[in-house]
Amino acid sequence: MIIVLKSGASDAEVAEVEGRIRAMGYKPHTIRGELRNVIGAIGDDRGKERLRALESLECVESVTPILQPFKLASREVRSASSQVRIGDVVVGGREVVVMAGPCSVESRLQVLDVAARVKAAGARVLRGGAFKPRTSPYAFQGLEAEGLKLLDEARRETGLPVITEVMESERVDLVAEHSDILQIGARNVQNFSLLRRVAEAGKPVLLKRGMSTTIQEWLLSAEYVLSGGNPNVILCERGIRTFETATRFTLDLNAVPVLKKLSHLPVVVDPSHGTGHWEYVESMALAGIAAGADGLLIEVHPKPAEALSDGPQSLKPDRFAALMTKVRRVAQAVDRDA
Amino acid sequence: MIIVLKSGASDAEVAEVEGRIRAMGYKPHTIRGELRNVIGAIGDDRGKERLRALESLECVESVTPILQPFKLASREVRSASSQVRIGDVVVGGREVVVMAGPCSVESRLQVLDVAARVKAAGARVLRGGAFKPRTSPYAFQGLEAEGLKLLDEARRETGLPVITEVMESERVDLVAEHSDILQIGARNVQNFSLLRRVAEAGKPVLLKRGMSTTIQEWLLSAEYVLSGGNPNVILCERGIRTFETATRFTLDLNAVPVLKKLSHLPVVVDPSHGTGHWEYVESMALAGIAAGADGLLIEVHPKPAEALSDGPQSLKPDRFAALMTKVRRVAQAVDRDA
Amino acid sequence: MIIVLKSGASDAEVAEVEGRIRAMGYKPHTIRGELRNVIGAIGDDRGKERLRALESLECVESVTPILQPFKLASREVRSASSQVRIGDVVVGGREVVVMAGPCSVESRLQVLDVAARVKAAGARVLRGGAFKPRTSPYAFQGLEAEGLKLLDEARRETGLPVITEVMESERVDLVAEHSDILQIGARNVQNFSLLRRVAEAGKPVLLKRGMSTTIQEWLLSAEYVLSGGNPNVILCERGIRTFETATRFTLDLNAVPVLKKLSHLPVVVDPSHGTGHWEYVESMALAGIAAGADGLLIEVHPKPAEALSDGPQSLKPDRFAALMTKVRRVAQAVDRDA
Amino acid sequence: MIIVLKSGASDAEVAEVEGRIRAMGYKPHTIRGELRNVIGAIGDDRGKERLRALESLECVESVTPILQPFKLASREVRSASSQVRIGDVVVGGREVVVMAGPCSVESRLQVLDVAARVKAAGARVLRGGAFKPRTSPYAFQGLEAEGLKLLDEARRETGLPVITEVMESERVDLVAEHSDILQIGARNVQNFSLLRRVAEAGKPVLLKRGMSTTIQEWLLSAEYVLSGGNPNVILCERGIRTFETATRFTLDLNAVPVLKKLSHLPVVVDPSHGTGHWEYVESMALAGIAAGADGLLIEVHPKPAEALSDGPQSLKPDRFAALMTKVRRVAQAVDRDA
Repeated sequence: MIIVLKSGASDAEVAEVEGRIRAMGYKPHTIRGELRNVIGAIGDDRGKERLRALESLECVESVTPILQPFKLASREVRSASSQVRIGDVVVGGREVVVMAGPCSVESRLQVLDVAARVKAAGARVLRGGAFKPRTSPYAFQGLEAEGLKLLDEARRETGLPVITEVMESERVDLVAEHSDILQIGARNVQNFSLLRRVAEAGKPVLLKRGMSTTIQEWLLSAEYVLSGGNPNVILCERGIRTFETATRFTLDLNAVPVLKKLSHLPVVVDPSHGTGHWEYVESMALAGIAAGADGLLIEVHPKPAEALSDGPQSLKPDRFAALMTKVRRVAQAVDRDA
Repeated sequence: MIIVLKSGASDAEVAEVEGRIRAMGYKPHTIRGELRNVIGAIGDDRGKERLRALESLECVESVTPILQPFKLASREVRSASSQVRIGDVVVGGREVVVMAGPCSVESRLQVLDVAARVKAAGARVLRGGAFKPRTSPYAFQGLEAEGLKLLDEARRETGLPVITEVMESERVDLVAEHSDILQIGARNVQNFSLLRRVAEAGKPVLLKRGMSTTIQEWLLSAEYVLSGGNPNVILCERGIRTFETATRFTLDLNAVPVLKKLSHLPVVVDPSHGTGHWEYVESMALAGIAAGADGLLIEVHPKPAEALSDGPQSLKPDRFAALMTKVRRVAQAVDRDA
Repeated sequence: MIIVLKSGASDAEVAEVEGRIRAMGYKPHTIRGELRNVIGAIGDDRGKERLRALESLECVESVTPILQPFKLASREVRSASSQVRIGDVVVGGREVVVMAGPCSVESRLQVLDVAARVKAAGARVLRGGAFKPRTSPYAFQGLEAEGLKLLDEARRETGLPVITEVMESERVDLVAEHSDILQIGARNVQNFSLLRRVAEAGKPVLLKRGMSTTIQEWLLSAEYVLSGGNPNVILCERGIRTFETATRFTLDLNAVPVLKKLSHLPVVVDPSHGTGHWEYVESMALAGIAAGADGLLIEVHPKPAEALSDGPQSLKPDRFAALMTKVRRVAQAVDRDA
Repeated sequence: MIIVLKSGASDAEVAEVEGRIRAMGYKPHTIRGELRNVIGAIGDDRGKERLRALESLECVESVTPILQPFKLASREVRSASSQVRIGDVVVGGREVVVMAGPCSVESRLQVLDVAARVKAAGARVLRGGAFKPRTSPYAFQGLEAEGLKLLDEARRETGLPVITEVMESERVDLVAEHSDILQIGARNVQNFSLLRRVAEAGKPVLLKRGMSTTIQEWLLSAEYVLSGGNPNVILCERGIRTFETATRFTLDLNAVPVLKKLSHLPVVVDPSHGTGHWEYVESMALAGIAAGADGLLIEVHPKPAEALSDGPQSLKPDRFAALMTKVRRVAQAVDRDA
């Protein structure tokens, strides 16, 4: 932490701040500048957040953190890239892993049909929502437990591992019984009790970025899972909220190289939610791979115009198959497989 | 909903879209324009979200909602402003209700001291966090159940009703035993299972806006509580996330008149979280009242520089008392009391 | 500037960075932390921007500025609040100065009618656009020189000083002949050649914030005018661009106390552009005053539904008069006049 | 335009709005819904902006545009993609055109050295700033006319056409004499008099997106140039302003497919300004091509740590050459050349 004092701060005030820094267990190091004094606080970083309280002193101008506050998620702590295994699928290796399927599980026929077709096209994981976070209480809320059973059937039929969302701590055990990866949705990225709970569930976790979560906050949310004893965390960029309304969200592909620099965790990209329009999914899927993503999460629906959720952003199976052909070409161009 | 067709859409395509609208239970009404055709879908609005799926048709340019999707929260359904009663305190009446206290309950002495002083200055409700949502797993997480007991003691000592945050469905009953108002924090504004759960707890709910929640989404979250049978919802503006970093968040006071137009629910403002700096709290508190807010939520700490959370934005008790004097003057200038 | 080195940076790398800092004319001061080294660069701040280039070194993690980069606009350089005089009107004194009038000057009758009515209601300055920045080339672009003459006539009739926008360096002399205050619009806040040019025009300048300009950047734009020799700069908050669409922009009243802390320049608020809806203008005007603004800029039109620009956000003269009564009450509540 | 009336609007009010729509030259078409009435206004779209003024009527809830307000930039008006020729370089064809060079022209040696090296690596256009828009008046402002001459020399030496920025109407003729493409920077995207002026200069225009410009506004700015008689407009995505601070801006690659859908104009991507960090330039350059961009604009400096501007985001020539090899591979993977 760097504590900047107001110009004109007296020696006594400098001494007071230094004393408080020591009292919190850090070593103060004061730089006397031309206009004002700056004090560095040296010591273990994880608790440094407390030093921010010094900003409430009249003589303090600002308290600026210098180091990233996450540890286990950091590439400094672990320089080799992590790989997360789901059966024989490895996320974070040479292969670009595509997870595809419907936004919501709507019926047995729908999910089995889509599952077979995305598998045929090259998807390695089946996605499908059983519990759905819906902005409106009047919207379709998912088939819930029934949906989980249909996902089990789709796994048996296709052999594809399954990813589905869990929204509540009370349901973690139930969902973990039926899902190979536990998805934490954007709206729950800072639902800290849920993060603590999935850390204990013994299944890999795919953690979506919140729509206004900074990359630093996102990695701190990952840190909740990692520090809870679960090293198998996959990060998923799915679009942030900006002023632009031509897309539903602004898929922030910059996050891919930033995360690759800061963290060893695998990163996948969700161009379906990120753009909100099927016409933009292909471009952004390919861009995500070129940016260095380890995988994609794509919504596919046999009849998007009749979908109970997210129809506008769903690809038809044919279009998904065509996309997969292009995915393979771009993956090879950046020395990956798909 | 207004469905805009692409230019050049054929009569057969218009007919197909009209047929799909009818199949979803709405009545299509087509306007033939010079460049393209537009179809209005007439009928009950709450399920209209499904019509968005039509955007996945090749001949459809866009699907634009025309009406607000919330019902029970709307001033159209209930034109008179709602009032929420907590004992003899009424939020949404002529009085501007000030809720004050520490960010976190840290110790018996701290909370009893602050409680007595904010009461003396004119606060009508005591705030204090027992369960704390913290961005970092390494930060102080609150005194939890012990904190709730200290709040009980502060209520007994001062007679002030208490507001504290509940973060998990499993803790709703526990928190409801100890708190007069259940606070839903910004990070849980779209934790829909928690919203459904507090709807059943029989206590008033203060629902903070999420940092990237639109006003429409926020009112839909309120709708979860209202449609769950609990009419006692207070909305709390606490700052949104923007590009500006001079303040921790951007307190969006525009939300006050917008909410007053769209909804009958009472609105309070939290200038402490909204700005993140104690030096800006007074100005924005007064501005909130002038904008028409029904109350304020303000953090007060006896020793901000030693606070375990949110020290930079906490007022000292003396400063809070000085603020209350000004609050009363501005409240009177807009025909309110405080 | 604080230069943070990557963890593992060698002594030779530290020495290299120190050398480069010295070569740019600053004094390096190195703090050796537990995990990494941090180097402060001490010296005159105005040129420190160049130090950012060090971020391109492999061994450098980040370069973080510590001090505000503006000088003449800073309250550190001039602690007393500045006042800007326009005839007998003083902006930045005890009086809250209201500037009102139509978005665009549309006709002789329109502008004379509005001028008389806003004066009667208590406005101290007449606003009106002759040159209009319009997003679309097909929209009404203003009466231009003819509009300036009509403003002259309105000044003669009412005695009110006039504020109008100048958009081009080539027109600064022309506009300065007819206007008592030169308004720089939001889209030109970083039109640096225009800023340099109005600095020489010998008239006070009202500098609107850009829709995505940080407060720091805005003060640097003011610095262009101040360092060009013109001390008479008024800052005008007019709304920033955020994700929220319920208002046209998000009027950021937080900017008022932030500017009052950082700068000595007077600050006015434009709730008309800031909200984009006449129904929200009153609340935000009053809130602006309560937040500490030195004035207001408000659009008034005799027939908003027929306005050639910004009809939705214009007040009718009667409504403006009613607002002025409330403005006076809130101003008095915060020890100001209006 | 769709005019939504408030619920409870009377027949007389509906008739009044219909009358006003007719008076503005449009044909009203009223849909009577269950809760409220909606009126479509049919007719030529370019002037429809005026209809927004109806929002100021008490009985009107909102006025929502349905069609895109730009014409000449629209793919509906011209379905074939436009190509912009600069000598033998074609932007918008099969080739991905890379424009590279220093942020600022700093010296003869610097620019000649970089020009030769980017040409050798495969760049087709030389970029370099002579007039620099700088946030601070104390920062290096460019070599101005001297810089233009150095660019001329670099063109003679290398045969590369040159792109440089023009910031002021008064300098358009001067810059047009020395530059093959006129660059309009992000801060001038809504400097409408400059846009009108470059429309007449007879040179292709590269129009950067503003940091808070929506795609619709950006295309309206392009419309100023197109309607001024210059069809040779290239759009350049260079990052928007969001809450995320890990990158300097958020390069919005979603804009690429959105623009390709809405417009026929060529689109290039600037990953240097978009990210602000050289470490992220490669990933985002490749992602831009995979997203469908027609070209790249990349900053290259022989000694970034000594650059007078934008050092942190500049590539060294070697790194640029390595990037070009990857650019070619990704371009081929999406059926383009480079």
